[in-house]
Amino acid sequence: MRDVVIHVCVTCRHEGWDPEAPRPGARLHAALTRLAPPARIVAVECLGNCRRACTVSLSAPGAWTYVFGDLTPEAGPDVVVAAGLLGASADGLMPWRGRPEPFKRGMIARIPPFPTLEDAAE
Amino acid sequence: MRDVVIHVCVTCRHEGWDPEAPRPGARLHAALTRLAPPARIVAVECLGNCRRACTVSLSAPGAWTYVFGDLTPEAGPDVVVAAGLLGASADGLMPWRGRPEPFKRGMIARIPPFPTLEDAAE
Repeated sequence: MRDVVIHVCVTCRHEGWDPEAPRPGARLHAALTRLAPPARIVAVECLGNCRRACTVSLSAPGAWTYVFGDLTPEAGPDVVVAAGLLGASADGLMPWRGRPEPFKRGMIARIPPFPTLEDAAE
Repeated sequence: MRDVVIHVCVTCRHEGWDPEAPRPGARLHAALTRLAPPARIVAVECLGNCRRACTVSLSAPGAWTYVFGDLTPEAGPDVVVAAGLLGASADGLMPWRGRPEPFKRGMIARIPPFPTLEDAAE
C-alpha cells in the first residue's frame, strides 16, 4: 500500500451559497476526518479549482496525483474509496473500475509522478 | 533553483479541429523542446484536462504542482517563463507577479507538495 495524502480545499463557495454557512469543502474535510481512513487528510486554502468546487486532490509517492471536483460535502465515503484505489494501485494509476461515480465524472486533472532517474535512462 | 519538470499533454484536440493535423499539445511540446529551457520536458498522453486543452503541468521538488490549460501551441516562451518562476520560488509557490497572462487566466489546479515529516509535527 502507498501512503496516500488527501488534500481538501476548505475555502470554495459557489455563487449564491449562504456566505455564513460552513463552507462545503470544510464540511467535506470534517466528514473525512470523522471517517478516519488510512490516509493523511490535509485542509488547503485553495486548490485552484474554484469553478468546480468541492475539490480534493489525492497524492501518493511514486503515483499519479489526481484532482477531482464537483464533489458534495457528502462525498466523504467516496473519497475514502478513491484514496484506497490509489493506495493499492501497483502502477500508480487510479483504476477506472471501482471508482465511485463522482470520481468518474469529476476528474479535473492528473499529473504523473515526478520523474525518477530510472525514467531519465529510458 | 529547483529542478522543474514540465509535463505536456500531447493528445488533446478540441472538437472541430482537423483530426489529421498535428495535435496542438504536440506542437507545444515540440516548440518547448526547441526552446531547451533549464527544465525537463515530458510528453504525456493525458493530463485529464481535456475540456481546456492545451495543458501543461509544472512540478518541482518541495514545490506546489500547477496545472494550466487553455494554452495555445505558441505558448512555449510563456511556459518557460512560468517554469522559471516556479524554479526560482523560495516558498514553492508560483508568484503571481511576473506570470505571463495565460498563466494568470488558465490555472486549472494547484496541489501542495507531498507533506514531509516536518509538516506532520506542526
